[in-house]
Amino acid sequence: MAVKNAFYAQSGGVTSVINASACGVLETARDHPDKIGKVYAGRNGIIGALQEDLIDTSLESSDAIAALKHTPSGAFGSCRYKLKGLDTHKAQYERLIDVFKAHDIGYFFYNGGGDSADTCLKVSQLSSSLGYPITAVHVPKTVDNDLPITDCCPGFGSVAKYIAISVKEASFDVASMAKTSTKLFVIEVMGRHAGWIAAAGGLASSEDCPLPIVILFPEVPFDEAKFLAKVDEMVKRHGYCSVVVSEGVQDRDGRFLSDQGLRDAFGHAQLGGVAPIIANLCREKLGYKFHWAVADYLQRAARHIASKTDVDQAYALGCAAVELALSGKNSVMPTIVRKSDSPYSWEIGVAELKDVANVEKKMPENFISEDGLGITEACRRYLQPLILGEDYPPYRNGLPDYVRLKNIAVPKKLEGEFQI
Amino acid sequence: MAVKNAFYAQSGGVTSVINASACGVLETARDHPDKIGKVYAGRNGIIGALQEDLIDTSLESSDAIAALKHTPSGAFGSCRYKLKGLDTHKAQYERLIDVFKAHDIGYFFYNGGGDSADTCLKVSQLSSSLGYPITAVHVPKTVDNDLPITDCCPGFGSVAKYIAISVKEASFDVASMAKTSTKLFVIEVMGRHAGWIAAAGGLASSEDCPLPIVILFPEVPFDEAKFLAKVDEMVKRHGYCSVVVSEGVQDRDGRFLSDQGLRDAFGHAQLGGVAPIIANLCREKLGYKFHWAVADYLQRAARHIASKTDVDQAYALGCAAVELALSGKNSVMPTIVRKSDSPYSWEIGVAELKDVANVEKKMPENFISEDGLGITEACRRYLQPLILGEDYPPYRNGLPDYVRLKNIAVPKKLEGEFQI
Repeated sequence: MAVKNAFYAQSGGVTSVINASACGVLETARDHPDKIGKVYAGRNGIIGALQEDLIDTSLESSDAIAALKHTPSGAFGSCRYKLKGLDTHKAQYERLIDVFKAHDIGYFFYNGGGDSADTCLKVSQLSSSLGYPITAVHVPKTVDNDLPITDCCPGFGSVAKYIAISVKEASFDVASMAKTSTKLFVIEVMGRHAGWIAAAGGLASSEDCPLPIVILFPEVPFDEAKFLAKVDEMVKRHGYCSVVVSEGVQDRDGRFLSDQGLRDAFGHAQLGGVAPIIANLCREKLGYKFHWAVADYLQRAARHIASKTDVDQAYALGCAAVELALSGKNSVMPTIVRKSDSPYSWEIGVAELKDVANVEKKMPENFISEDGLGITEACRRYLQPLILGEDYPPYRNGLPDYVRLKNIAVPKKLEGEFQI
Repeated sequence: MAVKNAFYAQSGGVTSVINASACGVLETARDHPDKIGKVYAGRNGIIGALQEDLIDTSLESSDAIAALKHTPSGAFGSCRYKLKGLDTHKAQYERLIDVFKAHDIGYFFYNGGGDSADTCLKVSQLSSSLGYPITAVHVPKTVDNDLPITDCCPGFGSVAKYIAISVKEASFDVASMAKTSTKLFVIEVMGRHAGWIAAAGGLASSEDCPLPIVILFPEVPFDEAKFLAKVDEMVKRHGYCSVVVSEGVQDRDGRFLSDQGLRDAFGHAQLGGVAPIIANLCREKLGYKFHWAVADYLQRAARHIASKTDVDQAYALGCAAVELALSGKNSVMPTIVRKSDSPYSWEIGVAELKDVANVEKKMPENFISEDGLGITEACRRYLQPLILGEDYPPYRNGLPDYVRLKNIAVPKKLEGEFQI
């Protein structure tokens, strides 16, 4: 097989470990100069391919590439952009082929979630649909943990660890203040469609250090009376309570609680978080003094406290993607296969992209406790291994020493611009 | 001198290192059984003394006491309660003396901020005012960094480190997303009266890794036009921007920006944070897609990423407080004296409590840049050493292994209840 160049890009919301997957891809590709020439990264995901805005990763030192393993965010830029269908948007695909041809690209690695798997699937079909030979492998990534087949998704374990630790720390804080001040702490976490991240808040409470925690899942329609009764019971019994609320929590009619028609002094619509809404509700109905936090990007960017399990898996999946491609597999995604909960063990598996693209994995019903406000032992068994281990980045002057690549552009070979 | 028991309590908002000071006090006291008998901790601060709700710390193992050094929050409970003047509330002081007498307490260590220093000062005057011999030493603590005389306050350095790291991590995230999505990240930080914590957000940007950051200080009246122009310039030049906004930022008339008369769908007043207000303003006026976070308790509880400098100083000040008391000093507070910025060096000094109580240290004017939206080199020189070093807690099953003490009550000796 002739030496071909490879394309790699990052897609969708970034995570604290997506660069660890990039590191796996780039290091493994460099180990196979007999098969892979240069790896060109797309600047801002697939947009980089469409606009022929490619980054020459061969110009980065091996130290810089290694440092990706401890650097959060997307080192080459990401995008929220999904390829449309071949039938209606053939020009897009022809453009991709033009760019791939111009730069002798025979491998396509796309690092993202469900939407991105769909893009990767479409590219993997270019051989059959438009006659351009390419091997496309998807590298899974999403804090939402909602990809099918794989046991878990890189990015999720570190968010889970961050949220579990944050809820534990804040709960200790509230417990100290409860006598004369704050009795209730509310934290809003990501997960608009699934409660995986909210569930991780439940890990803050453990057998050796139980904490009063109430969780509001997007899967469970908000029942105000039941929720308030539970919070009240917790505060009366323990003196305080922490509430983990998913940004996606909805009322019985399927409306987001965060979308409650807030208006500012001038009557303009105001986008608030759901945490202050829940906190205010508790104060109004129960009279408890509260504090609230919205973690937002902090949770998915917190490489400083990433889960070692997550970092290891993200890196391994990047390596595996290249190995799959080199072994001739097209239109696949390496997965995590769980071998055992405790002691935790896992290995790499393979899924067909057609089984992954646009399929959303929901949280199993038996992961949410009967009252709808907590997690079950089954959920705990699943989540626990994913937050295991710390993988601290190096520090410099008190700050994590994250790498910024040179990201030098590959000279363009095509004429004209492509409008996206 | 006869052996006397000691009283120790935590006061005001807790921090990630106040227990390190407790550890210093308790360990040092245990080293002097010839002078200090038992250390009784007040359950929930001074309230524990008033209500004779004392905790016998001698029943805690030395391992448990040592573990306080890596455990956030207030291990004995804190309170927001300030002793009133002796002239108007003599009964309170007589009650304190009754409790101290009943439990043979001759040393009083109070761990808190400015208000607490005032309480400690009043207790230190019991010898002269009411004839009860007691030695009272204050142990400084406040994330607000606003105590006078001491170069810095334990608790602040760790919040500063957390905010600097969080802003760096979120900035990397936004930079990745900016091409097709989020261009602006707003984070709200603590500091209602002083911008020390907001200033720490500026540390996220360094010479080797510059980042576009705009800071809104409580010291600088909010100038909408100037702020928007700066954000716009940053986004146009760098593609994205991070905004650090102090919860205490005010308009020209001295009104908190967070107090903008938000109303929910039913017309009820809604307490939102200032972060969404700033974020919405930028979207409305500049059109940029945003994300926002409110760190709240997470920032002051984040022992998982505490500054080693801060932990060391908190512990040393606890030790020094006991040593000062044993050397016969009354009505004092150990302080941090900075000897050199770089390489950073410091030593313990002493301040008179009368010079500390109710005095608020403001941020120097030359710490805020001329445009009012950033920090100066002088500020950076001051802040930089305070975030140096990491002091990771031990982990167990993926979570920090924080200690919870047994907190066994000392049998009451007095009749009747004291109403606070």
